[in-house]
Amino acid sequence: MQEFTIVDSISSYINFDEKIDSEITITGMVQNSRVTGWGGFIIIRTPNNNIQCVLDRNTLNIEPEAIKVEAAIKITGIVKSATIKDISIVPRNIEIHVKTVEILSSPSENPLPVDTTKKELNINLNTNFDKRPLTLRHPRQRAIFRISSTIFNEFGNFLTTNGFTRICSPKIVKTGAEGGANIFKLDYFETNAYLAQSPQFYKQIMIGTFGRVFEEAPVFRAEKHDTSRHLNEYISLDLEMILENGFTDLIQVETKLLKHIFSKLNELCSNELELLGVTVPDIEKIVTIKFDDVHDIIFKEFNKDYRGEKDLAPEEESLICGYAKKNWDTELLFVTHFPTVKRPFYTMDDPDDEGKTLSFDLLFRGMEITTGGQRLNVYDDYLKKMKSFGLNTELFDSYLQSFRYGMPPHGGLGLGLERLTALICGLSNVKEASLFPRDINRLEP
Amino acid sequence: MQEFTIVDSISSYINFDEKIDSEITITGMVQNSRVTGWGGFIIIRTPNNNIQCVLDRNTLNIEPEAIKVEAAIKITGIVKSATIKDISIVPRNIEIHVKTVEILSSPSENPLPVDTTKKELNINLNTNFDKRPLTLRHPRQRAIFRISSTIFNEFGNFLTTNGFTRICSPKIVKTGAEGGANIFKLDYFETNAYLAQSPQFYKQIMIGTFGRVFEEAPVFRAEKHDTSRHLNEYISLDLEMILENGFTDLIQVETKLLKHIFSKLNELCSNELELLGVTVPDIEKIVTIKFDDVHDIIFKEFNKDYRGEKDLAPEEESLICGYAKKNWDTELLFVTHFPTVKRPFYTMDDPDDEGKTLSFDLLFRGMEITTGGQRLNVYDDYLKKMKSFGLNTELFDSYLQSFRYGMPPHGGLGLGLERLTALICGLSNVKEASLFPRDINRLEP
Repeated sequence: MQEFTIVDSISSYINFDEKIDSEITITGMVQNSRVTGWGGFIIIRTPNNNIQCVLDRNTLNIEPEAIKVEAAIKITGIVKSATIKDISIVPRNIEIHVKTVEILSSPSENPLPVDTTKKELNINLNTNFDKRPLTLRHPRQRAIFRISSTIFNEFGNFLTTNGFTRICSPKIVKTGAEGGANIFKLDYFETNAYLAQSPQFYKQIMIGTFGRVFEEAPVFRAEKHDTSRHLNEYISLDLEMILENGFTDLIQVETKLLKHIFSKLNELCSNELELLGVTVPDIEKIVTIKFDDVHDIIFKEFNKDYRGEKDLAPEEESLICGYAKKNWDTELLFVTHFPTVKRPFYTMDDPDDEGKTLSFDLLFRGMEITTGGQRLNVYDDYLKKMKSFGLNTELFDSYLQSFRYGMPPHGGLGLGLERLTALICGLSNVKEASLFPRDINRLEP
Repeated sequence: MQEFTIVDSISSYINFDEKIDSEITITGMVQNSRVTGWGGFIIIRTPNNNIQCVLDRNTLNIEPEAIKVEAAIKITGIVKSATIKDISIVPRNIEIHVKTVEILSSPSENPLPVDTTKKELNINLNTNFDKRPLTLRHPRQRAIFRISSTIFNEFGNFLTTNGFTRICSPKIVKTGAEGGANIFKLDYFETNAYLAQSPQFYKQIMIGTFGRVFEEAPVFRAEKHDTSRHLNEYISLDLEMILENGFTDLIQVETKLLKHIFSKLNELCSNELELLGVTVPDIEKIVTIKFDDVHDIIFKEFNKDYRGEKDLAPEEESLICGYAKKNWDTELLFVTHFPTVKRPFYTMDDPDDEGKTLSFDLLFRGMEITTGGQRLNVYDDYLKKMKSFGLNTELFDSYLQSFRYGMPPHGGLGLGLERLTALICGLSNVKEASLFPRDINRLEP
């Protein structure tokens, strides 16, 4: 048996401003190097930084040529003030004058099959995804996933602060929540099971326990089409809550939630946003529009006739977002009252508008990022609606227990993490916002 | 188009101390009711509380008999100071003297098939799981999942604060990370895929990008045995990091991490811990013991001979935890240097101890909750080890890219959320710490 004391700090954050003219030791990987006659520069990639280091051949313990790109190194040196223009360097107000370099591991092969030292990767998506273990080392790729990580964290933080409890619902299920054919089938011992398309049933069940719940977890959709808007596995940010004032409660919560996330991105990811050349909106108000009115505006303003269609076409989403930005000064647009026939059975119909539901989509920068709405909460209403949808209620028996024994008015929404990340980062394909995307043609890496 | 202002507060937290003698309106569900001649009491369950409400038949707008258990209600009343002994009530220093009750929804059936108003559910596990939408409404069940939720949140918060970046790795994979037969097979369009047994390969790949990463997500193990220690789907809390001082860095990080989580549980879940009658340990030091020494102690102290066995038996885990608590005053015991043959191929061997690895398990209250260790980081070492394990390196090509082009010394660990929760809550079966457990016989609810 051995006893150890607990170390003071394990944080990898360094306050460089306090370390000016002091010696520090840091471990990281060589992002880039430029060897010159007198020595040269290397950029060292650490968990939180991308630091410029100056090498002096006369005093350094090794030849600068020995330090390869993507080597893991431990350096000791003096922190000096500096003014650096390259926006891929973080921080830009210091550099390290290196005294010694210890090479911890050197790549077996060099150079890399993709050049991660260039300002832009400039490779096609397939190559990017095939070489993901390497392309993700590029500063711009890294920035995308720091932003994605921050959205995930702040979604949870905001909701926890507001009385929501995190749940973890099963991904292996007996019955799909969203219906349809886009569900993956699984061998489950001697029987079959499916991969959850959404945590819908479970977050509703959990309303009975906690009244306000959220989940951040993968969902699985076996959609056969390979588009720039879809992934077969993605992270769904879900919430469900008791409604005290109807489904507008959800619109209020989502607006405040996004306002919080955007504010945290400005605070925690300012370098990443700058590197990608993008900004997040400043939300000051809520703008909603009814589903039918979108069709009307698109017809009147753009002469495209989707009137009578029961859903929004991607072209409409894009056009109405441009219109809303120009005319209503908003990048977020809540479209409400979608037709009953296009919403799942658990959606509540609008008692004042036959054939319409108390539901909404949130559009952002040309694309739907959220579907939400009020759910049925009375047992008999489920029986009626499921019958009219031709569903066998026996298959949903364990879910329906909740409603049989009492459930409050409630509703919820789901937000696609990769879509939101892609739209914030200005990516044209949602797959670029997935570390290891899955589509009909891709299972690796 | 309609414009709305953003509401001020959407939090469900109420500071009752500031509301004494004030009128408030709250929405929730009826946890329990006791009707008397003069009126009676109801307990109302809200997202954060379980509040005692006093009904006065003379002044109330409805008959107390009309308020059924598990009805959803909105009440208005005056907050009054009180001293309440029932530890399922939160908070216990106030009650609400109700003026009006609005019934939002009433159960279709009553009473519930399980009695959630009793102090203890006292039902067998199968009934508990079959009726999960109802049993989870019991205060003790609810407490377990508030604790579980807090562990999940604080794992992420602690690591984020210390420079770790959250990752989301794919759960549909082409190759299992842990090998063996306990992997679920999936129809993936025209081919086969598997469900990830762990995020191992992906968190290692991401070391190349971020140096410190973590993930909190489901993993899937097709283990056929139905035990009190196993789930077929569970939440794995994973981290991976550059090691600057070898694998003891991991032991330091995990100790600080658990110290943080336990301290947050005391802060945020004191009511839940009290209701369950449990406490969390106060960690003041780290105790480690080598694998071989555990066998020796078990033999010497308990006369059970496991010497020569290449793994720890559950009985040994239990006995050594009792021994460590008594003799070394610790509830956390790191067992290090497991045999090479029992650790996966990516584990680094101890250069100073042939046949042993730089790995550890963390034992807590009689059970293993973590497996961790240093990983190989040199490409050629992977080729050698995989050959000796009889593995076809071509199947791991996309993973091995990382090491071919340079990787720092690194390691990581995985912590089972349900096991940790069960051990904290004093549950005898890990399934009780899963909202909707999955085992060989259970796919519903």
